[in-house]
Amino acid sequence: MKSNIFSPKSIAIIGASPHKKKLGFQVLKNVIDGGYKGKIYPINIDPSIRHIQSHKSYSSVLKVPGKIDMAVFVIPAKFVPQALQECGKKKIKLAVIISAGFKEVGGEGVELEKQILKIAKKSGIRILGPNCLGFINTKIKLNASFAPSMPSDGNVAVVSQSGAICTAILDWASKNHIGFSKFFSLGNKSDITELDLLPYLASDKQTSVITSYLENVAGNNGGDDFRGVAEKTTLKKPVVILKAGISEKGAAAISSHTGSLAGSNQAISSLFKQSGVIRANSLEDLFDYAEAFSLLKAPTGNRVAIITNAGGPGVMTTDAIEGTKLELATLTNETQEKLKKVLPPAANIHNPIDLVGDADDLRYKNALNIIETDKNVDSILVLLTPQTSTKIEATAELVLKKIKKSSKTIIPIFMGGKRANHGIDIFEKNHSAVFEYPERAVKALEKISFCQSCEMGIRKIYPPKILKIKKSRKNKVNKIIVGARRAVPENQPTLIAGSTADEILKQYDIPILKSSLAKARSEAIKKSKKIGFPVVFKIDSPDIIHKSDVGGVIVGIKNEKEAGVAFSKIMSNIKRNAPRAKINGIMIYEMVSLGIEFFIGAKRDPTYGPLVGFGLGGVFVEILKDVSFRLAPLSYFDIDKMIGELKSAKIISGARGKGSLDKKGIVDALIKVSNLMINHPQISELDINPLAVFENRVVAVDNRLIIL
Amino acid sequence: MKSNIFSPKSIAIIGASPHKKKLGFQVLKNVIDGGYKGKIYPINIDPSIRHIQSHKSYSSVLKVPGKIDMAVFVIPAKFVPQALQECGKKKIKLAVIISAGFKEVGGEGVELEKQILKIAKKSGIRILGPNCLGFINTKIKLNASFAPSMPSDGNVAVVSQSGAICTAILDWASKNHIGFSKFFSLGNKSDITELDLLPYLASDKQTSVITSYLENVAGNNGGDDFRGVAEKTTLKKPVVILKAGISEKGAAAISSHTGSLAGSNQAISSLFKQSGVIRANSLEDLFDYAEAFSLLKAPTGNRVAIITNAGGPGVMTTDAIEGTKLELATLTNETQEKLKKVLPPAANIHNPIDLVGDADDLRYKNALNIIETDKNVDSILVLLTPQTSTKIEATAELVLKKIKKSSKTIIPIFMGGKRANHGIDIFEKNHSAVFEYPERAVKALEKISFCQSCEMGIRKIYPPKILKIKKSRKNKVNKIIVGARRAVPENQPTLIAGSTADEILKQYDIPILKSSLAKARSEAIKKSKKIGFPVVFKIDSPDIIHKSDVGGVIVGIKNEKEAGVAFSKIMSNIKRNAPRAKINGIMIYEMVSLGIEFFIGAKRDPTYGPLVGFGLGGVFVEILKDVSFRLAPLSYFDIDKMIGELKSAKIISGARGKGSLDKKGIVDALIKVSNLMINHPQISELDINPLAVFENRVVAVDNRLIIL
Repeated sequence: MKSNIFSPKSIAIIGASPHKKKLGFQVLKNVIDGGYKGKIYPINIDPSIRHIQSHKSYSSVLKVPGKIDMAVFVIPAKFVPQALQECGKKKIKLAVIISAGFKEVGGEGVELEKQILKIAKKSGIRILGPNCLGFINTKIKLNASFAPSMPSDGNVAVVSQSGAICTAILDWASKNHIGFSKFFSLGNKSDITELDLLPYLASDKQTSVITSYLENVAGNNGGDDFRGVAEKTTLKKPVVILKAGISEKGAAAISSHTGSLAGSNQAISSLFKQSGVIRANSLEDLFDYAEAFSLLKAPTGNRVAIITNAGGPGVMTTDAIEGTKLELATLTNETQEKLKKVLPPAANIHNPIDLVGDADDLRYKNALNIIETDKNVDSILVLLTPQTSTKIEATAELVLKKIKKSSKTIIPIFMGGKRANHGIDIFEKNHSAVFEYPERAVKALEKISFCQSCEMGIRKIYPPKILKIKKSRKNKVNKIIVGARRAVPENQPTLIAGSTADEILKQYDIPILKSSLAKARSEAIKKSKKIGFPVVFKIDSPDIIHKSDVGGVIVGIKNEKEAGVAFSKIMSNIKRNAPRAKINGIMIYEMVSLGIEFFIGAKRDPTYGPLVGFGLGGVFVEILKDVSFRLAPLSYFDIDKMIGELKSAKIISGARGKGSLDKKGIVDALIKVSNLMINHPQISELDINPLAVFENRVVAVDNRLIIL
Repeated sequence: MKSNIFSPKSIAIIGASPHKKKLGFQVLKNVIDGGYKGKIYPINIDPSIRHIQSHKSYSSVLKVPGKIDMAVFVIPAKFVPQALQECGKKKIKLAVIISAGFKEVGGEGVELEKQILKIAKKSGIRILGPNCLGFINTKIKLNASFAPSMPSDGNVAVVSQSGAICTAILDWASKNHIGFSKFFSLGNKSDITELDLLPYLASDKQTSVITSYLENVAGNNGGDDFRGVAEKTTLKKPVVILKAGISEKGAAAISSHTGSLAGSNQAISSLFKQSGVIRANSLEDLFDYAEAFSLLKAPTGNRVAIITNAGGPGVMTTDAIEGTKLELATLTNETQEKLKKVLPPAANIHNPIDLVGDADDLRYKNALNIIETDKNVDSILVLLTPQTSTKIEATAELVLKKIKKSSKTIIPIFMGGKRANHGIDIFEKNHSAVFEYPERAVKALEKISFCQSCEMGIRKIYPPKILKIKKSRKNKVNKIIVGARRAVPENQPTLIAGSTADEILKQYDIPILKSSLAKARSEAIKKSKKIGFPVVFKIDSPDIIHKSDVGGVIVGIKNEKEAGVAFSKIMSNIKRNAPRAKINGIMIYEMVSLGIEFFIGAKRDPTYGPLVGFGLGGVFVEILKDVSFRLAPLSYFDIDKMIGELKSAKIISGARGKGSLDKKGIVDALIKVSNLMINHPQISELDINPLAVFENRVVAVDNRLIIL
């Protein structure tokens, strides 16, 4: 996408109207009132209309004498294709289609959307929308939307898939004096999506934080995918996304709303983590983070000082810091000595610093001056409660001055309502961040302290680990899959388990139990010896599913003698209990004491591809749910984070005096599963449970795959 | 406490001052300006002062001719004792001591507080404070505080341990038009605490919800305890408490602030659950819940309908409902048919009901009229985003009317900022609840839907199960404890494990492994047979701690022959490896396959008494942390909730095709541990891990107690 596409020098408003009640009137008015300096061409099919809102109007873009960079569509859906074709002829580069009546209404609308996409592709036009609010570029004072008013300019970019959320965001910003760089309403995302806008905004000089509301996130469909695009963007700028439709019911509400498929919450969560996107869990979060990233400087460390005029709020703030990656700063002795000199005896000179109830602005100033120079402090939360002698406005003014001059991150938190708002207004009017509640300020501070693109974050992309797997091995896997598939009726999922599943894992060198097939008693004895006692015997027959039920399993075979007896025993059991079963022989497995049972799973998400899970295994895996997920292909960094998220990470590193487990073995197995899932899209699900983990070895004991 | 104590007919302000800058001026002014109709007596030691703020003043309460019900103290701490003594003589019933300089400053202040308490007790005076903001009773228009203004009257009672939080709450209420019934600043809680105020407010007619900010919660100190008081109160009215100081650091901040000990978060959490208290996790929560309980009617069920003018916010609200105890209502066919008739074709007639972006007030009205009569709907969330054609004020007015008339709970959520606020103002000015974010509205709705004192809640107190334990058994336990205690130096904790711990559990009939002590080989064989093979032998010696290390343990003894061999083997091992150890004999234990390993623990909290825990056991109990807690004495109801909170509850009820486990055995064991902890305060900690749980049996396998 060309970088100047949203900075047109001339625009046509197709459907511009002289009637105040029409959307075409409002959109043209917005363009004019916003202060746009480029050429404006109202287009109205009625040739009797000559001027609309003092601008000369035309019956078609083709009638416009000059060049047109962009067209806004506010005409009924059915007229869009023809008008778009004319835009093609006119070499217009961008069509902002506000008109509704496309995919979102189903039926004919779907066809109509396909039709306009085809036209656009052929003519080299990019489409924003349809069914959108339009877009705003404050840099060139262009309000090409039907939003009720032009927002002030600032450094926040907004990309929203819901027009209503756009209006709510604009309304919030107008109250809180937040300014925007660019504002995009995505509508049906027929052409331009977040995949285009993230790179565009990453290099947009006016933008320093990208915020977004999405109902579905563009998947991995051939070309650039979200992960690739977003991880590059988040290296440059923070990206905050509110993804709606996390619940099944929520997802249903989306389908009936925009007709698009919502990705599973787990996949989205992995996707965001892997691409460095900051997830907002509510609109309130989105607003808080937008404000913080827009207005606050990123701290250079995680040590927080709290200044307060009351103990209670200090305690509440300390509570809020607990459980985050932030830390309560330990003030230097020097700081404490200095504080002692300027504060009354009842004050607390340790962090949280309590200036006591009668603190005026001067006392805040003295404390701030001292704390600001403490080398152990990275950011300062300034709490104020509206007590009788509190100088709310004066304190706000002085904190504001400090914020502007200080090299540290200073966040005011003014608690209360009516009186506190007098202070809050001062910050807001001066475009300075301010909070009403400590919990929210702390949450926002944590985000700006640990964001990937900010000072303290991780500034590197860790490439996924792609293994070189021999073609013959891949073919072998595919052959097994095709074979298994053939045995099952069309459209039914195929389960692959037992030795067949092991055979697939073996091609990727995922360690499985040593095993061997024996057809005769003497062979069984010989092979058991080779594997090493104790061993387990299992009947191998495509016709026997529940092997134990027919006496087809004997465990704990300790020596050659027992092996011989066991072979005969199983064979006679089968002869009696399943006389007509086809018998391949007896599978001999090494018998391992189970070590610690972990679990590796994979499930192919329809939108985002294979989701790989790792966690505590065994029979209760679904109950304990100590499992973490990432999308394949996995990087070593991903796996490190996956393991770190688990409660059972402590077991791996050695808990309760026990030795540490084979972490390298776990990592290898995960990389191999990741590659297996990437290379063989027929595999829909995979289950290694348990993955027995020992101090120096891992073994995939019980393995199943589902093929679609 | 007498019910009229906070409705005095006459009050003295001790320290009333004619100087505007003095607190004694402000407090008197507040009393007068508030509109108090009773008699007001300013007291100032300076006899030259005759009148203060037009009220005749006196140099001592003893000089006042009439009766005085209450005195407010605004004099320096050191003068308080004498003035209080005079109050005693004057038969004043309540002293509101605003003055600071007591326990909170340490040293002499602590002594001073003890002194005034002694005086008060002797004279029958109750004390609110010291070091508090005072109190407000809007019913009699009494503002006996130095809060900057008199709040409007309403049904919310506030009890706050922080004066600053008081001012923040008043300021919030003033902005949001929330009215109060009573307002208490507790200060140092020297005499009157939440234990007095909860019962008082429970029967206060003006109060319908009790909100509180506490830094420490009154413990179980002999008389009435918090649990007993609160569970009675919550049956009548919702009680919402914000407890600060949940983190260790937070707790430290409190100690340095009020010198009081913060209870552990786990104990507080159990205490609140067991007494039906609703816990607010932030001031924002407290405000939201206060507003909801104050202004909304409690719904009669948990089925929620959503009406919205945009899909996005509908999805967000559905997301917010997921994971709560609320449910998205399924509209009747009739409702859907009716909706179809009045809504445009693009609208969604399923829940969430999307009126689409151009919805005006009439469309909201039509939808509300229909949804209101749907028998499948208990409460209605009305969402509005400020879109171009949205009639914000008109919609607010009509929703307001509906709220007043409807039998259902209707909650408006107006999202945005500047324009949305025009609607929000209409609700607030009319004392009607309104929210800005769906997540917060849903959270508040859940609270009012499931509160103990509201329609859908549980309206019963479940008494703790107290077992009748024979005195001889209790004595036996005490004797064992004393004996064990004797063996360890003073001031050091005593560990009781092995057969001694088993002996204690046995007195309470907690099922332990069958065991027997044998001193001779033949005895060992005989007793093994009696217990039933297989058995385990363990050397029993007070001098041998690590029994395995000296060859003192043999497991899996299968028959009489093996028993004989094992006895000799252990004895010879000990002779060789620990020749000087005193040997009691060999303990024989039944050998159980471990079933599923659970865990019962107990720890005595210094403030709230024994906290009993239950959860998944085994070696990884601390890692998986699938444990729930309640304070002893436990009721059957408590245990039911404890088990219900666990992920592993599913294992007990039969997971993955396995049979259910012996839940009754678990419940019995928990009741017995609860009684053991209550009856023997010397026991500081107890650990049963594992508690082996089978389908029809539980066994406390490995047991330890710590005695202090």
